[in-house]
Amino acid sequence: MALEVFHKDETLQMRRKLIGQSCRLFFSHDPVKIMRARGQYLYDENGMQYLDCISNVQHVGHCHPSITQAAAAQMDLLYSNTRFLHDNIVLYANRLAATLPKKLCVFYFVNSGSEANDLALRLARQYTRHQDVIVLDYAYHGHLTSLIDISPYKFRKLEGQKEGVHVAPLPDTYHGIYREDHLDPGQAYADTVKSLIEEAHKKGRKISSFFAESLPSVGGQIIFPTGYCKRVAESVHEAGGVYVADEIQTGFGRVGSHFWAFQLQGEDFCPDIVTMGKPMGNGHPIACVATTEEIADAFTANGVEYFNTFGGNPVSCAIGLAVLDVIEKEDLRGNAVRVGGHLKQLLLQLQTKHPLVGDVRGVGLFIGMELVKDRVSRKPATEEAAHLVRRLKEERIVISTDGPWDSVIKFKPPMCFSIEDAERVSTCIDQILGAGLQGSISRNT
Amino acid sequence: MALEVFHKDETLQMRRKLIGQSCRLFFSHDPVKIMRARGQYLYDENGMQYLDCISNVQHVGHCHPSITQAAAAQMDLLYSNTRFLHDNIVLYANRLAATLPKKLCVFYFVNSGSEANDLALRLARQYTRHQDVIVLDYAYHGHLTSLIDISPYKFRKLEGQKEGVHVAPLPDTYHGIYREDHLDPGQAYADTVKSLIEEAHKKGRKISSFFAESLPSVGGQIIFPTGYCKRVAESVHEAGGVYVADEIQTGFGRVGSHFWAFQLQGEDFCPDIVTMGKPMGNGHPIACVATTEEIADAFTANGVEYFNTFGGNPVSCAIGLAVLDVIEKEDLRGNAVRVGGHLKQLLLQLQTKHPLVGDVRGVGLFIGMELVKDRVSRKPATEEAAHLVRRLKEERIVISTDGPWDSVIKFKPPMCFSIEDAERVSTCIDQILGAGLQGSISRNT
Repeated sequence: MALEVFHKDETLQMRRKLIGQSCRLFFSHDPVKIMRARGQYLYDENGMQYLDCISNVQHVGHCHPSITQAAAAQMDLLYSNTRFLHDNIVLYANRLAATLPKKLCVFYFVNSGSEANDLALRLARQYTRHQDVIVLDYAYHGHLTSLIDISPYKFRKLEGQKEGVHVAPLPDTYHGIYREDHLDPGQAYADTVKSLIEEAHKKGRKISSFFAESLPSVGGQIIFPTGYCKRVAESVHEAGGVYVADEIQTGFGRVGSHFWAFQLQGEDFCPDIVTMGKPMGNGHPIACVATTEEIADAFTANGVEYFNTFGGNPVSCAIGLAVLDVIEKEDLRGNAVRVGGHLKQLLLQLQTKHPLVGDVRGVGLFIGMELVKDRVSRKPATEEAAHLVRRLKEERIVISTDGPWDSVIKFKPPMCFSIEDAERVSTCIDQILGAGLQGSISRNT
Repeated sequence: MALEVFHKDETLQMRRKLIGQSCRLFFSHDPVKIMRARGQYLYDENGMQYLDCISNVQHVGHCHPSITQAAAAQMDLLYSNTRFLHDNIVLYANRLAATLPKKLCVFYFVNSGSEANDLALRLARQYTRHQDVIVLDYAYHGHLTSLIDISPYKFRKLEGQKEGVHVAPLPDTYHGIYREDHLDPGQAYADTVKSLIEEAHKKGRKISSFFAESLPSVGGQIIFPTGYCKRVAESVHEAGGVYVADEIQTGFGRVGSHFWAFQLQGEDFCPDIVTMGKPMGNGHPIACVATTEEIADAFTANGVEYFNTFGGNPVSCAIGLAVLDVIEKEDLRGNAVRVGGHLKQLLLQLQTKHPLVGDVRGVGLFIGMELVKDRVSRKPATEEAAHLVRRLKEERIVISTDGPWDSVIKFKPPMCFSIEDAERVSTCIDQILGAGLQGSISRNT
């Protein structure tokens, strides 16, 4: 049983006093206090159940007993570090290697996606001896100093764009410069990266890496057009750089058909570095960088130790292994294909009914539904999206928005999300859109 | 029971193949494979017991059952993030606040000491609107890009010193520019920081922060001279900067007499930011930044969210709380005073007997024994220290070296280290020094 120590008001008051206010709460006007969770369900201090559509970290479902058991068993044996030999780290690296193309065969374990992306930067720079980075517009790669610098989503609000960071257009065929009516948007967007490299070279800059989420999340749940990644990789390699696939939100089977989202781009594309994190430990702080022997060797060759105090410890690896086991045993990739496919169909039906729904896109259990003021201008319906999120909360469905204008309703639920859950959320959205938001659109346009 | 999956040779072979070789092993010529651990004891694949003198992360003892129990209970309830309200984070922040001076009352939870130091940098720069950092020579503050830049121990071997980073002399009264015979080494070393600031100002640079471990560890288990921190803080404040105390290795009662090592400098000294990490979760990835309301407010004022996916989750906080409980219930600070004091006495006796032992310093269970070729030149006895570490391993005692020349034998054991353990290790060192290393000294000098 989960017992409340403080009344909700008191918790909130203490939190406002004791925790830095840059750490924000969901539904900040009336936050929820969650006491326990199971599968795709959250329970508040009154035992009220919420359907969770966004906790992608709790990948195999909140508080899965197999994960708790694996963690407790290993915690009772050994919670040390990688300076001692241990089987778990090699077992785990071996299992991860089996999910990746052969050339991605060397692993570094760390504690968070941010740590993974920072290490990827260090690896890329050490290997290429170049400094500059190309990133996609609106990208977010983590909260560390080095990553704010390569995250347009953050640096635009802070100290601005640094020399050595080059921002390529987001290959968004709904809002971007090339749209769904373009004959080959993959080529067209890849050419923008090529041009960016040429411009950088004219200024005497040298490209270390192209950094991108395999499906840009904060950018608005974007699906890359066919052929994009392969062609970008060709240009980046030609410039002496490496391709870093940020799979922190998208890996571990979320897309269903493949284990990694970059694999959606076909077998003739392979990144040089893959970073992983969020779903890896089902809530536990673990993350990883996978790379090639050549890149790892260049990093070793500098003669400097890389020691990450907690990274790759026996407990984190035991948890990581247990997560992989559950994904397989419970066929969660199959579930992502089935339930994600069904949910997308239901949302596409809503699109035929409600003019507010401008676009529905996604793969597996990574889906975005974009709200627009009208379908011609595609002007983002930011307030309507916020309203929908608030209304869904009243229906006890936890969901949120993403995208440059917070107009994309994002679905990244635990992978055990069911057909019934999909129907419940789509029915609720249908009712809310039917009842109220149409009005707010017509008032606003 | 801990079961071996692979024979040790195979584990080692797989590790060499699968894990980046920058991640080094202890005793790399013949690494140990540890299967389980309890208290201050490690057990290898043959059940052989080792006395652990260096695992400061496993602060209250390896695999303490109270910690495992707290973790498993919370993992079964909720392993979510700080965007939902939860009691654990405010309970934990409140408990930490009680250990600190009143003005350090706002907390940010993260996953590692490196993440904490990076956030401290961001806070300092945002608050002061200055960029430059003063660090101590030989300092190490973490593995991230931003921290390599302020870690002379690392950047000297890599890309070198960056503009905007200023290196102050390590206030080491055994090897440094002012020694134990100086009348006021605290003032003298603090004056070096003052001069550094003046030089920086002449170049038009602006100081955001002075960053230092409260007891420099990699620097060689250094104890700051009296009055140093207070005077440094005065100069730094005068320059518009803040004092960041890195307590990642030294906090949580390791020094025995105080909860934080900076408190050794007296009640009239208080840092503006304190970072904590390693011992905080007894092995679990958790770390924290504590700061003042003014600094936190300046960080909030930029309007940009700080979200750390795993930082401050209910499980990490439950573990943190359980660690605090054990420190209190088992009087581990008292134990650090008693056992650390006894160990230091025993090592001081070895100093009277063995010319190789140049210096013994430390407080609580943070002790360094420095080996020198001879006591006049104080030339570091690096090979002899390595030899002693290898010989102690044969006696099944795990220990290692620190300091610019790896000549300092460091003691940072789990806080349950006993009087018997202290006597065992000192007797072993006495025998080894008596038998063999004297020979190796005379051969080398």
